[in-house]
Amino acid sequence: MKGAAGVMRQKIFEILLEESDYISGEEISERLGVSRTAVWKHIKALKEDGYQIEAVPRKGYTLKNRVDKLLKTEITAELQTIKWSKDNIYTYGSVDSTNIIAKKFAAEGKPEGTFVIAEEQTKGKGRMGRDWSSPYGKGIWFSFILRPEILPVRASEITFVISVGIREGIKRYTGKDVKIKWPNDILLDQKKIVGILTEISAEIERINYIVAGIGINANQDLEDFPEELQQKATSLKICTSKEIDRNKLLRFIIEELEKMYITYVEKGFAEILSIWEKHNITLGKRVKAVTFDSEINGLAEKIDEQGYLVIKDDQGKEHKVVAGDVSLRREDGSYI
Amino acid sequence: MKGAAGVMRQKIFEILLEESDYISGEEISERLGVSRTAVWKHIKALKEDGYQIEAVPRKGYTLKNRVDKLLKTEITAELQTIKWSKDNIYTYGSVDSTNIIAKKFAAEGKPEGTFVIAEEQTKGKGRMGRDWSSPYGKGIWFSFILRPEILPVRASEITFVISVGIREGIKRYTGKDVKIKWPNDILLDQKKIVGILTEISAEIERINYIVAGIGINANQDLEDFPEELQQKATSLKICTSKEIDRNKLLRFIIEELEKMYITYVEKGFAEILSIWEKHNITLGKRVKAVTFDSEINGLAEKIDEQGYLVIKDDQGKEHKVVAGDVSLRREDGSYI
Repeated sequence: MKGAAGVMRQKIFEILLEESDYISGEEISERLGVSRTAVWKHIKALKEDGYQIEAVPRKGYTLKNRVDKLLKTEITAELQTIKWSKDNIYTYGSVDSTNIIAKKFAAEGKPEGTFVIAEEQTKGKGRMGRDWSSPYGKGIWFSFILRPEILPVRASEITFVISVGIREGIKRYTGKDVKIKWPNDILLDQKKIVGILTEISAEIERINYIVAGIGINANQDLEDFPEELQQKATSLKICTSKEIDRNKLLRFIIEELEKMYITYVEKGFAEILSIWEKHNITLGKRVKAVTFDSEINGLAEKIDEQGYLVIKDDQGKEHKVVAGDVSLRREDGSYI
Repeated sequence: MKGAAGVMRQKIFEILLEESDYISGEEISERLGVSRTAVWKHIKALKEDGYQIEAVPRKGYTLKNRVDKLLKTEITAELQTIKWSKDNIYTYGSVDSTNIIAKKFAAEGKPEGTFVIAEEQTKGKGRMGRDWSSPYGKGIWFSFILRPEILPVRASEITFVISVGIREGIKRYTGKDVKIKWPNDILLDQKKIVGILTEISAEIERINYIVAGIGINANQDLEDFPEELQQKATSLKICTSKEIDRNKLLRFIIEELEKMYITYVEKGFAEILSIWEKHNITLGKRVKAVTFDSEINGLAEKIDEQGYLVIKDDQGKEHKVVAGDVSLRREDGSYI
């Protein structure tokens, strides 16, 4: 579903959604200024997406259901964004990786706020080239494009924007006190529910684009996770004991991401950092940071103005960490 | 000319180059363990590249000329690299942009030291999305891949490595005292002879790859430059009053780039910076720095350990600049 055809299909869907009664193909075609054949084709495509649309002679069409697949129609029907356009939301069934598609879109010039969403990734990637499991229908696997006008050395600020945005979206949906572990792990019940992979394309003096790949564990049951992950990862369904309406949750997340991004652009990093600090569980804790050339143990003291985590070791020496794996020591001596 | 076929063609060319006398197709086929038909096909391809290869019955083949097109055969025949493989050098006639091809290669996993070289770019790009003129046969337009194991926040260090490497290559070929203007303009006679565009693909905590696009003004005459550039840009031919052997120059540059890169990896940034400082014309001068959100006038004081240029303004305040346009005030008040 692309371009103008996608926009028209969305409009037809929204008319069907608004109308509690039957509406004729003729009226739809008049309202939207397209042929009745076009209307019929779009209705057919909506049916293929899983919508039951009843057609009664002389009365017209009526929509009988909503669909719980990740569909542009579902996500955008009630989406309220300020600058980001609904038209730049793309939904897919199975893809290799939403980041690969989003990077291609970004290289082609697609704007900020372009979202690539899939039911399944066959080659989902996590940080540092690790695999990221993205089974069909269980999670929300998506990537989106940002084009901040900042120097590339400040790119790590964007990971804070993304984590507070996603945190707010999940909080709004679940009502739960979602936590953030530095740099951008999103936790519920001390277990990971979201993975974030931020990729940057840049020159030395400007960012061409940022593509953030997000994996949200939504409707997995405990047995859907491999045994070695069951202590570390969880899903929103497990935490809330309810099936998650992924389209609604994703809508909330898109809206909150945009809000936080606008806050960042208009008010700067300090504002984002203060929101992040309220919800983080890293600062003030004993941590172990493993970077590619060192291991640091000490107290997570603060985030500096560049977004670095400052760790004070037992000799009182301060270390700055920009990224890497940071584990928190639990009271029982184990690590989150 | 790609992969195994390219390697074989190169070997046949090098045999012809070594042999002062005729050499039979049979002997070539025996030495290299390929069929005589294959030998004949490669000879034919070499002729299409512009080589005159005389074939005399019962005597064999002999090479009558060298070719001044940018050809893999010419560049690599005498190339002496340490880690970078000759097999990863790709030459083309006209391309849209060598950076686009090199980025595609990098995303596919091609290694460090992969070079993409063209006679002409139809969509050559400079920094900040500016156009870069790359007319057919006049310059050396190329891009190459690096994969340094450093944090992305240190990427600007690589621009120093690249500028000293290119500077050494041109120095070795011309014997002239080539200068560097911060961050990475290469100058002869106070005019620009090289443009460098460094593009980075990264996560927050690691670099996937760097692609550096290089444009060297080699054989342009003054009238080849648009009038508005004649005061700012020049070519090696204009500066040396000699036609430039572009293949030889590029060979020197590849060798010196590799040397500097190995120095950087093994000895660190400080070593590169001290070489850079010897040849730079920025430090100690009055400069005007225009970044995307400010203009700073003052004394170019030093490069700090992160590669930032430190400018002290007339109030004694220090400003750090990571990139941007920095102009030097000449004695007559004009700017380089």
